[in-house]
Order: sequence, then C-alpha cells, then structure tokens
Amino acid sequence: MPNSKTTTCQINATRLYSSLETLGQIGRYTDAETGLQGVCRLALSAEDGEGRRLVLSWMRELGLEVTVDRIGNVYARRSGLRPDLAPVMVGSHIDSVPTAGRFDGCLGVLGGLEIVRTLNERGTETQRPVVVAFFTDEEGCRFGTDMLGSAVATGRLALEQAYDLRDREGLRLGDELEKIGFLGQADEKVAAPYAYLECHVEQGPILGAKRVDIGVVTGVQAISWQALTILGKSAHAGATPMNLRADAGLAASRINVQLRAMIASGEYGEMRATMGCIAPQPGLVNIVPGRVEATVDLRNPSDLHMRKSEQDLLAFYEQVQSEEKVEIRWRQTARTEAVAFSPSLQQRIAEAAQGAGLSHQPIIAGAGHDAQEFARICPSAMVFVPGEYDGISHNPREFSTQQQCANGIHVMFEVLLQLANEIAF
Amino acid sequence: MPNSKTTTCQINATRLYSSLETLGQIGRYTDAETGLQGVCRLALSAEDGEGRRLVLSWMRELGLEVTVDRIGNVYARRSGLRPDLAPVMVGSHIDSVPTAGRFDGCLGVLGGLEIVRTLNERGTETQRPVVVAFFTDEEGCRFGTDMLGSAVATGRLALEQAYDLRDREGLRLGDELEKIGFLGQADEKVAAPYAYLECHVEQGPILGAKRVDIGVVTGVQAISWQALTILGKSAHAGATPMNLRADAGLAASRINVQLRAMIASGEYGEMRATMGCIAPQPGLVNIVPGRVEATVDLRNPSDLHMRKSEQDLLAFYEQVQSEEKVEIRWRQTARTEAVAFSPSLQQRIAEAAQGAGLSHQPIIAGAGHDAQEFARICPSAMVFVPGEYDGISHNPREFSTQQQCANGIHVMFEVLLQLANEIAF
Repeated sequence: MPNSKTTTCQINATRLYSSLETLGQIGRYTDAETGLQGVCRLALSAEDGEGRRLVLSWMRELGLEVTVDRIGNVYARRSGLRPDLAPVMVGSHIDSVPTAGRFDGCLGVLGGLEIVRTLNERGTETQRPVVVAFFTDEEGCRFGTDMLGSAVATGRLALEQAYDLRDREGLRLGDELEKIGFLGQADEKVAAPYAYLECHVEQGPILGAKRVDIGVVTGVQAISWQALTILGKSAHAGATPMNLRADAGLAASRINVQLRAMIASGEYGEMRATMGCIAPQPGLVNIVPGRVEATVDLRNPSDLHMRKSEQDLLAFYEQVQSEEKVEIRWRQTARTEAVAFSPSLQQRIAEAAQGAGLSHQPIIAGAGHDAQEFARICPSAMVFVPGEYDGISHNPREFSTQQQCANGIHVMFEVLLQLANEIAF
Repeated sequence: MPNSKTTTCQINATRLYSSLETLGQIGRYTDAETGLQGVCRLALSAEDGEGRRLVLSWMRELGLEVTVDRIGNVYARRSGLRPDLAPVMVGSHIDSVPTAGRFDGCLGVLGGLEIVRTLNERGTETQRPVVVAFFTDEEGCRFGTDMLGSAVATGRLALEQAYDLRDREGLRLGDELEKIGFLGQADEKVAAPYAYLECHVEQGPILGAKRVDIGVVTGVQAISWQALTILGKSAHAGATPMNLRADAGLAASRINVQLRAMIASGEYGEMRATMGCIAPQPGLVNIVPGRVEATVDLRNPSDLHMRKSEQDLLAFYEQVQSEEKVEIRWRQTARTEAVAFSPSLQQRIAEAAQGAGLSHQPIIAGAGHDAQEFARICPSAMVFVPGEYDGISHNPREFSTQQQCANGIHVMFEVLLQLANEIAF
C-alpha cells in the first residue's frame, strides 16, 4: 500500500531528491558487508568541507546572502519586505556519522533550499526574511559533543570550549575548522529567529509501521546515559558453588531485565530503556565473569518520569550489589532534559498536512536535533518523514522515498509561508 | 587459624615443594598486570618438552623404568614383588594453560615421584608395581580436546584422530609431538591398572572456605556447554518504541537470569550454571543489540538432573524467541556424562586422612581430570587439597602451601601402600 500522495505539492519533488543524491556523492563509500553505497562526511573532515562548499554554491546560485560564523555555522538569508523583522529559520546539518545514508540532516537543509527555490521561481515575496542554515557537527561523532554548532549559536556552549575539543587523534576542533576554510567572522551568537523549523527523517519505525506520512514532533526526550563497571569475582564455572559466586555478568543481566520490568510496570510514563553494551571479562565459557562493562540508555519525554526512573534504578543497583556480592560503579556519560516544541507550530504543521491530504500523528523525537537548541530561544518545531526498513538510520540502508521527502518539505513550505507573512504569533 | 598439621607425615614436604618450584621455572613468565610469576607450558610446546625432559630425568634418577607411548604419555614403573600383578597407578599432567600457576597437574605427578622417593629411601618393597604417569595435553587449550592423552590411553579417543588435531596456527598434533621428541613407541592402549589415584589442587573455594585439609572427590560433574547466537534487530535506542524491538541482548540477559532461577528452584539437584560470555553487537550505548554471541555452561553431578535442565532450558529458549521476537541458534560445544569415583577408594582416602589427623569432606570435581578417563577401566579416585585466594587456578595467583600439598600426598602415600600390598580389592 503506497503512502497517500499529496495533490497540492508546492515544491519540486524531483529537484529536491536530485539535490540529496548529488550531495550524497560527497564522502560516498561502498559498505564492505552489504555492497551498499554509504556516506561518510565526519564533521570538519575534508569531505565535510567539500559538502559545505557545494551547498554554499547552491545558496549563492539562489541569490542568498551567506554568512559563516565563528563556529562554522552557515546562514543563507533571503530578504523580506520587512527586513527589520526577525527571520523564519529553516535548518539542520550536513555532517554525518561514519556509516550514514544521504538523508539524515541533509533533507532539512536541502529542503530549505528547495523552499527558497520555489519562492524564487514564483517571485513570491514574504514579509519576514527567510534563513536556511546548517550547523557544525550535529552528530558529535568526532569531537564527542552533539548539536555543537547550534549549542554555541544559542548560548549553551561557549565558543572557546568548543574550539578546544579534540578528536581521537588529538586534533583540535578550532584548528580543523580553520583547515577546511569555515572559521568564519560572524558573531557565533545568533539573533533569535521568529520561529525555527526543521524537517528530518524519523530514524525510527513508528511512521513506517503505521503508514503515516507526517510526524508532528511534540518534543525531544530527556536522555540519561550511564556507563557501569560491575566488579565481581572471576571464578571457575565448574568448581565454584553458586553461593560462593560474585557473578558480574549475572548482575548486569539482572539490571537489563529490570529495565524491561520497569517499563512493563507503567510507572515511568513513556520510558524507553536499553542496555546496548554488556562486556563481561574474561568472557570465556567456563569462567564466572569477574568484571563487566555495561551501559544504560534511558529516554523519557517527561523529566519527572525520568528522574523517578533514575532514582529507582540506583536503588535497584544497591539491591543487586548486596544480593550478588558485587560492586556497581556508575557514571553519567550524558544527561539532557526533555524539550517540548511549540504547540502552536505543531498545530500549524498538522493543519498543513491535513490540507494536503497527508496523514499525520504526533511523535516524540528519539534522537537529538538542532531544533532542541533553538527551542530555548524561539518557537521551534520539527516535521518527521518516514524511513523504509523500520526507519533504519546511521546506516547505508537509510532510505526515504522521493514522495516521502517531498511530503515533509511541502508541509514545511506551507507553515513557513504563513510564518513569514505574519507580524506576530 | 592454620590448617591442622599431620603429625605422621610419611613424605618429605620440603623436597616435594622444592620439586614443584623447580618444574615451575620452566615456562615461567611475569604477568604484566600483577607482576606475579606465572607458568606457560602449553601442550607439546618447546616449554612442555623441556618440562617433560626434567621430569623424565627425575624418574630415571629414582631407578624407574620409563616408557613413552605413541600419544606421548609417560609411564614410570617401580617394580613389585609380584611384577605379574596389575600396578597401582598415580598420575596427572604437567602441561598447563597459558596463564597457569605451578600446582595444577604437577602436584599429582611430582607427588607420585615423592611417594616413590620415600619408598626407595626406606627400602620398602610392595607386592604390586607402582606406576607414576603423566598424560599428554590434559588442558586442551592448544588443540581443543582436554584429557587427550588419558582419553587415548583408555580408548575413548582414537590415536589417528588425536594426531590430526590442529592448533590455531594449523600445526598438527602428531607433528608437534614428534618435534618435541615425545612420539614414543609403546602401545597407546594402557593395560588396566589395579587402581588409579590422582592428587590435585581443588581449583575452587570450598575446602579453603571451610578450612578442610582434604577433599575426598566423589566424582566428576556432567558438563554441557552451549554456544548461543541470538539474532534480533539492531535499532536506535532513542527512536524505537519498546514494542517494536527485538533486543538480542535482553534475550541473553533473560536466559542468564533464568539459569539462576532454575538453580533457586531446587528442581535440578546440585546444578551449577554460568553465562561466561555475552557479546552484544554492535555493543554501543544507544543501539539496541541486533546480535549476541553468548555461552551457557551447565554442570551437574547427576546425569538425570543434567538432562532435565537441558530440556527445560531449550523450552525457555522457545519462550524467549516468541516473547522477544528473536531467533536463538545454539550448538553443543561440549558434553560429558557424570563420573562416579570408586566408593571403596573414597573410603580409604577418608580413613587415611582421619588417621593422620586431617580434616576431610566429600567434594565433587568441578573441572575435568585424567582420573575420569581411568574411571572407565579401573577403580579410580582423587584427593583434593585446598588452594588459597578462593582456590583460584589457571592463574598466576594459584597457590597451595607446602603443608597443604604434603597433606594430600601423604594421604595418597597411605592409600597407595595399602593397594600395592593387596592381591584383590
């Protein structure tokens, strides 16, 4: 069953999709296992530089006024009839994880350019300026801090602190930014836009499973990451009676099963929980593990539920420590609060989808996005489009159809046009 | 509280301990992490060859008649007044795991030589011959089959099959045996001894925890090893709702927790169970594991209980497959039946300990030993002595005191003397 098709699409779907394919050629590689074409444009790599220059050339072809700020964020401005008014901003990122597809981030940026292209073609003028932006190092794979550029622009992260981040080879972010020619002159602190909009692939299976065209993103979940080191006692699996063991692997397994039980209890709202890493040492069939490295990933759209889950999990660690005679050391490796997007913008997105005959539903963002940084300084919102193959992302199999991409950018176009022509919310 | 000391020790404790230290110099290395001295004498390595030649020289110094069979097992015979009678055999092994101490196996062999040395000193003659033996590749670390030499000698494993085993570098066991000069001429099938005795370090914490001097080994547990491959669906930990997951790591954790629950149920007798390896892929904090390699190690002194535990575990795999939407593939990587040692020999061992004022208790062998191979062809038994540090073994920290070693060999001496002077059981 194909997705329903919009009959009133304002943008050129073929042109949009073609631009995604063109940008996807930069940093292209062939996945050894599957033979699929993947994309690798790590932040501030030579490939990122090449991708940036391509997108800049398109921005200039569209007659936009391009500025590069001191953290390498790029803003392309189409003026309005009232250039004194705050602009409507459309943004995302074009850096990628090492094993990416060609949609993550790029759809938001190139979709923004397609919107401008459509406005230009029609000679449509707007009251407010429109800015299409891409932000430095959204993925955080190389320097360890995601949403870096938008965090600096909106004041969460200091410029010098960002400059001093280093990659695994010890290379400094500030130096790498200069090396690719994107250490700009413009003030890194962005003036608050009138509104910020971002279109992105869902990176999850929900829309695809329900065959829904448009996800109206309600917000971004709170994230809590823990790294656990569990210390037990390495022992011979044959010779050690059960009551004399301190099995670090069993302790980790109990925590993993407890995460599932917490979710089943219903006491923690829309909690998601994952133990992605369990690494027992020495990891041999006949040795009771004496040490385990493990991770816990908690997500929750509610900060209150998140805090309750964290507290109750720590209490469970105490219980496991005592029952299994192990020591559980944990440290927080990431922690962000939940972000709620503008209800008014969500409403407009839903209406625009409705008007185009597109099915839609509210959805929480599972991953982090630049929009959550802008939500601190202006009304912000996101549009999700479905991805094939259970919405797999950060993988060469990441794939959304031309129609799916066009649907999302069409909705963005409609909402942007409203916002850009109004004086106040 | 020190272990009680025997007041009637028949053997020279200092001399025995000194021989263990001398043999422990061969293959000695310094553990990088702890700075402790370890031993590495992998089967049929140059170090194993050197160790064998040292022990052979001691056997010849004692006037023993040495034969080497076609699988490299070494038998050193002290004749009896009735050389036509089947000998009493004392044996074990001198090959080691890569990270060994100096007691595992060596105590049984050098203890046998200390018994002969004591008999010689006193000019004691016995009715039956006494044979001290060491067997090829008991550990199985290099060629993948443990108790190899004794299995060939007692008919469980064919000679040609053993010859054709290869190590990780593709080297053939038969060639390696020849290379170190231990491809002997004697028939590999051993004539059934009158009885077989083996003294060994416990390799577990039981005797140490209870401060018991002597373990009277009742038998060897049945062993069942499984390698599991669990196939789920790799997915984004933030974007994938719980009900759309197929978490291979959670499936493995549930199996691990179930093993514990089975033991707690009491339905499986003296079952021991361990998941020593859990390796989720890709093993990242924010990815639901799509694949896990794991192992299950089951031990049970009862074959009936073992079979029930295997059946019930397979039924649980079915349940987990259906509930977690994963596929669980498993293969048996080892399976041995339980072995019961001679009750009469156990009785004699207990009495000998008692007579020497040594505390003793029945104990099941957690690991495999050459004695279990001989149990098929003659009355066999084992004496365990405690090890320090929870009985840690296969580790440079493996340690038994001079007194602990001497206690075990003293008991062996007493039982051997009885057996070697009787005509029938």
